[in-house]
Amino acid sequence: MAKNEWGMSTYPLVPGHEIVGVVTEVGSKVQKFKVGDKVGVGCMVGACHSCDSCANELENYCPDMILTYGVKYFDGTITQGGYSDIMVADEHYVVRIPDNLPLDSGAPLLCAGITVYSPLRYYGLDKPGMHVGVVGLGGLGHVAVKFAKAMGVKVTVISTSVNKKKEALEHLGADSFLVSKDQDEMQAAQGTLDGIIDTVSAMHPLLPLIGLLKSQGKLVMVGAPEKPLELPVFPLLMGRKLVGGSCIGSMKETQEMIDFAAKHNITADIEVIPIDYVNTAMERLGKADVRYRFVIDIVNTLKSSS
Amino acid sequence: MAKNEWGMSTYPLVPGHEIVGVVTEVGSKVQKFKVGDKVGVGCMVGACHSCDSCANELENYCPDMILTYGVKYFDGTITQGGYSDIMVADEHYVVRIPDNLPLDSGAPLLCAGITVYSPLRYYGLDKPGMHVGVVGLGGLGHVAVKFAKAMGVKVTVISTSVNKKKEALEHLGADSFLVSKDQDEMQAAQGTLDGIIDTVSAMHPLLPLIGLLKSQGKLVMVGAPEKPLELPVFPLLMGRKLVGGSCIGSMKETQEMIDFAAKHNITADIEVIPIDYVNTAMERLGKADVRYRFVIDIVNTLKSSS
Repeated sequence: MAKNEWGMSTYPLVPGHEIVGVVTEVGSKVQKFKVGDKVGVGCMVGACHSCDSCANELENYCPDMILTYGVKYFDGTITQGGYSDIMVADEHYVVRIPDNLPLDSGAPLLCAGITVYSPLRYYGLDKPGMHVGVVGLGGLGHVAVKFAKAMGVKVTVISTSVNKKKEALEHLGADSFLVSKDQDEMQAAQGTLDGIIDTVSAMHPLLPLIGLLKSQGKLVMVGAPEKPLELPVFPLLMGRKLVGGSCIGSMKETQEMIDFAAKHNITADIEVIPIDYVNTAMERLGKADVRYRFVIDIVNTLKSSS
Repeated sequence: MAKNEWGMSTYPLVPGHEIVGVVTEVGSKVQKFKVGDKVGVGCMVGACHSCDSCANELENYCPDMILTYGVKYFDGTITQGGYSDIMVADEHYVVRIPDNLPLDSGAPLLCAGITVYSPLRYYGLDKPGMHVGVVGLGGLGHVAVKFAKAMGVKVTVISTSVNKKKEALEHLGADSFLVSKDQDEMQAAQGTLDGIIDTVSAMHPLLPLIGLLKSQGKLVMVGAPEKPLELPVFPLLMGRKLVGGSCIGSMKETQEMIDFAAKHNITADIEVIPIDYVNTAMERLGKADVRYRFVIDIVNTLKSSS
């Protein structure tokens, strides 16, 4: 968004949609929160509340969902995100952060966390004893491993690089690791997975991943490659497999996810930076040089101009 | 298979996997059937009975499933299909045909029928009031319309040709009709379907079909295009949609389907032919010149050589 790579950015732009903080003021009709509460805001700050998706408490699939930054709000102003020392939001789009969840390492759960938690639940990949693959070990993938493990699921990380094997197994607690370019390894793992959470946005072949699935297996895309991928249909038919999508999660589910994370001590692995490091951080992001999320310490490093 | 278009045929080949008849003899351990019973055999005549799929009564997804014709049976012989005056089959793979279901027009349900019935059930597209699309109005598509209507589902037929509109609406009882090449019609129908049964084996674009789905909508492929199709991922994410496959159905579900068809008077539209017309019928099939299935009247036209 900062670089307008999706062609939809307008400037000035205030990015940031994994935002945590403390309530400093509440409106007269606010019921859920009081001053001093620890709260978070994720990817969205509004929706139409009259469509089918909204009626089913799935604001994230509302066609008029309002993103946390860079789009027009109800009052005509442009929404501004978390690279800021203060924020005003409708309480419906504010999540309560439990006391035992650290604010800094909990923040990335508000997008990365819910993006992987929601499909594990919706596609039924959350049953103890199931075996789920996680493709890509970045901001989304590393928390996908943690959530799946906390659900009692056996996890295999699938990555292009063998370099991440030790990290995946020893640090993140994955049960096994597959190098997607190693045809022997991939062949030996054919038909072993109940589902896959695919976090990769780069172009990549689906056929080898579909091959890893058991019958009735589910390949869930949460990364969005720019161009269409090749879908081989015959392998889907032969095992009644499916390829599905998922996009963040509803507000109700985001609160559920945060509460689950607090209960199971799930946080993102982060590197906390001051605001004046942000351009360097952006450069490092472009090289995937972070494990796994930068978090900006606003309160100690950004002085309010007011 | 007769023309070896899939490259897996061996000759001599006896085709036919939508087979009905009357029991003339039973083995000493047969429990389900007696001489004189009306029965049918569909696409398969054996499976391993020890894999996960078999353990879940899903013989159709057994990797060692034995097709009704042209493959090696347990005893090393090659299976032979329904272009024959007699057939021997394991009772597990034999379906009981209820008395009120005509043998001739009921026969195509054993492949075409179960192929569309099973995904309507498995993908939950069988709830009264739902709205389901059927792509392609051939042998599979025309019975898909009948089954979906009998389940209380609203049906839209999607076809490349406006020529089939009258047939779809007036004869088959579909509720509406979309010409897939008519961009205005397709645009107006965006986001209206809970699911789609896609029976087309020719190459075709998925994006317009995915666009017809509501959020959480399901596009189910039962035809198998030879080459991979283009899958646009972003539209799947934005509406948590999925593209899935389905392949015939289990023996248990095939019996359930036949009983449902008998109860709701669902049969295929057929043209009954004598065996010596079969080469002409094959030519006409190649031109899609049949509404909708040829059925060979074996008993009156094929003399046993024994």
